[in-house]
Amino acid sequence: MIRAAALRLEGHVRRTPLLNSAFVDEIAGRRVWMKAEALQHTGSFKFRGGWSAISALSPQAKEAGVIAFSSGNHAQGVALAARMHGATAVIIMPSNAPKLKVDNTRALGAEVILYDRDTENRQEIGVNISQARGLTLIQPYDEPEVIAGQGTCGLEIAEQAAEVGITVADVLVCCGGGGLTSGIALALEADAPGLRVRPVEPTDFDDVTRSLLTGIRQTNSKLGGSICDAIVTPTPGALTFPIMKRLCGTGIVISEEDCLRAMSVAFSRFKLVLEPGGAIALAAALYHSDRLSGEDVVCIASGGNVDSEMFARALANYPCT
Amino acid sequence: MIRAAALRLEGHVRRTPLLNSAFVDEIAGRRVWMKAEALQHTGSFKFRGGWSAISALSPQAKEAGVIAFSSGNHAQGVALAARMHGATAVIIMPSNAPKLKVDNTRALGAEVILYDRDTENRQEIGVNISQARGLTLIQPYDEPEVIAGQGTCGLEIAEQAAEVGITVADVLVCCGGGGLTSGIALALEADAPGLRVRPVEPTDFDDVTRSLLTGIRQTNSKLGGSICDAIVTPTPGALTFPIMKRLCGTGIVISEEDCLRAMSVAFSRFKLVLEPGGAIALAAALYHSDRLSGEDVVCIASGGNVDSEMFARALANYPCT
Repeated sequence: MIRAAALRLEGHVRRTPLLNSAFVDEIAGRRVWMKAEALQHTGSFKFRGGWSAISALSPQAKEAGVIAFSSGNHAQGVALAARMHGATAVIIMPSNAPKLKVDNTRALGAEVILYDRDTENRQEIGVNISQARGLTLIQPYDEPEVIAGQGTCGLEIAEQAAEVGITVADVLVCCGGGGLTSGIALALEADAPGLRVRPVEPTDFDDVTRSLLTGIRQTNSKLGGSICDAIVTPTPGALTFPIMKRLCGTGIVISEEDCLRAMSVAFSRFKLVLEPGGAIALAAALYHSDRLSGEDVVCIASGGNVDSEMFARALANYPCT
Repeated sequence: MIRAAALRLEGHVRRTPLLNSAFVDEIAGRRVWMKAEALQHTGSFKFRGGWSAISALSPQAKEAGVIAFSSGNHAQGVALAARMHGATAVIIMPSNAPKLKVDNTRALGAEVILYDRDTENRQEIGVNISQARGLTLIQPYDEPEVIAGQGTCGLEIAEQAAEVGITVADVLVCCGGGGLTSGIALALEADAPGLRVRPVEPTDFDDVTRSLLTGIRQTNSKLGGSICDAIVTPTPGALTFPIMKRLCGTGIVISEEDCLRAMSVAFSRFKLVLEPGGAIALAAALYHSDRLSGEDVVCIASGGNVDSEMFARALANYPCT
C-alpha cells in the first residue's frame, strides 16, 4: 500500500531534502540528518496522507466530498489535496488551534467548523457530520491509506540514507496518533531494516511511550495545553499501535523548553522554520543523546506551521550561537 | 567551466529544492518558484563558488591555504570548503558584519581578520596578506572558478524548470558583485535560453541596475548601512559585468521594507529562513509584479544567515496572514 501510495503521489509530493550541519553534529555528539518535511506542501508531512486517501477514493466518493478533524496540519494537508482533486472538504478544528492553521485551512477552500477541545469529542462531531452530509471521513492517523501516504516519507528516507551511506540508525519521529510513525516504520522494515523508528512525544502527552512500555494502549490525562499542538492525541491508534509495538524502539519524552531550543537551532543551522511539535525529534537528538545509540541519527522535522509570536519567543528565549 | 565545476561539486553540494505556494502565487499574480539556496551548506549559495575555486587549485596551492574577504556568506562558504579540502583559510570580514556570520566563520575553522567597511579597502588588505603569507586569494565574485561554481545553481534551475514545465520566465537573482547573477545567466543561456536573468538590488546600492542602463560600470555612493549586507558591493565585477550586460534583463531596485516583508512571507509560506538580501528577489516578485512579465517567475532565495533579532523584527513588523 505504501508503494502504491508513492506512485499516486509522484509528481504531486515534494521529495524533501535530508539536511545536515557540522554545528548540529557537534551539539548532538553524532551525525544528525534532518528529513525536512516542513518543506512539504502545506508545511507538513500531512499532505502525503491526505493525497493518498483522497486519490484512493471512488469517483462517486470524491464527488461527494471529504471531512476531517485536525488541530491544523492534517486539516491543511486534506484541504489542499481535496482542492487539487476538485473535491469539497469540511474540516473540524479545535477553537484554540493556531490562528495561522485555521486561516490557511479556510484559504485552501475548506469549510472550517470549530469545536472546544476540552469539552467536545471531535471524533463524534466528525462522524455525525460525515453521515448527515454523505462525506467520507478521512481519519488523521487510524486509516490505512493515510498511514500508507505518511509511509512514503519512510521510502524516501530509506533511499536518502543509502545515498549518504547510513545503514544503521535511530529514526526519531514526532509522534501523535502514530500515522507517520507507523508508516515510516513499515517502509523502513521493507527498505532499510537497519533503521529503527523511535517515537518522540512531549511531556504529559506520552501515551505512545507508555503504551510501548506496558504493551497496551494508554491514554493521556489531558487533551490540550501543549505548545506541541500538532502531536497531541488522546491515545495511540487502534491500527497504528500494533505496528508501532512490533517495529518501534523505546519512546522518548521531551520537555516543551527543549522543543523551543531545537526550533532556534533549526533556525540558525538549517534555515528551517519548525513548529514546536515539528522540532521535538531534533530536540531528542540534541539534548538526549544518552537515549540514542550509533554514529548517525535521522530526525523527522515534521512541520513548520507556527505563529510568528511563538517562533519569535523561541528565538528570543533560546538564542543559538 | 560551469559543467566542470558541477562535476567537482557532485556529492558535496545540495541540489536545493524549487518551492512553490498557492498563497504566494496569489500575492504575486503569477506562479512563483523559489530556488531555496538558503538550504545550501553554510546557509547560502556561496559554498558552490568556494568549493569550485578550492577544488580547482593545485595540490601545492591547497597545501599553502586560501584567503577571502566577505561580509559573511562567501566567508562561510570558503571556510567550509577549505576545511573539507584540509586547507587553511583566512577570512577578512567587516567589523559590522552580522555576529552570526563572524561566529560561524570562526567555528568553521577559519582565521577571521576584521576591518572597518567605511574607511578600509578589503581588496587591498586581502591582496597584502595573500602576498605576505603565500595564500591564494579567492575573490568573492570576480574569479572565473567562483562564477562557474555559482553557475551550477543555474544548471539545477534549468533542470528543475523543465521538470515543472517552465520554458519562459524571468529569473530574479539577488545581486551584489554579480558572481551568482552572471553564473546563472551563463548556465541558462546554454540550458534554458527562455529563462532570462534579472538582477535585484537594494535601494541606494543599485550599481548593477544603473550599470546595465548606462552600459558602463557605475559605483555606489556608500558601502555600508544596508540590512542587505550580503549583496552590498562597490561596483559590478570587471568579469561579471560584461556577462550581465550581454545576458541580463533590466535590474529591479527594492526597498529594505519590502525585503523584510518578503522574509515574513518566506517564513509563513515556505518555512524558510531568509536574510534580507536573500529575500530581495522574492520581494521583487511579490511587490513589483508590474516590472515582470509571463506566467511564471523564478526567485533565487540566496541566503538565510540572519541574526534572530533581525528575523524577529521582520515577523513582528510585517505579519503575513
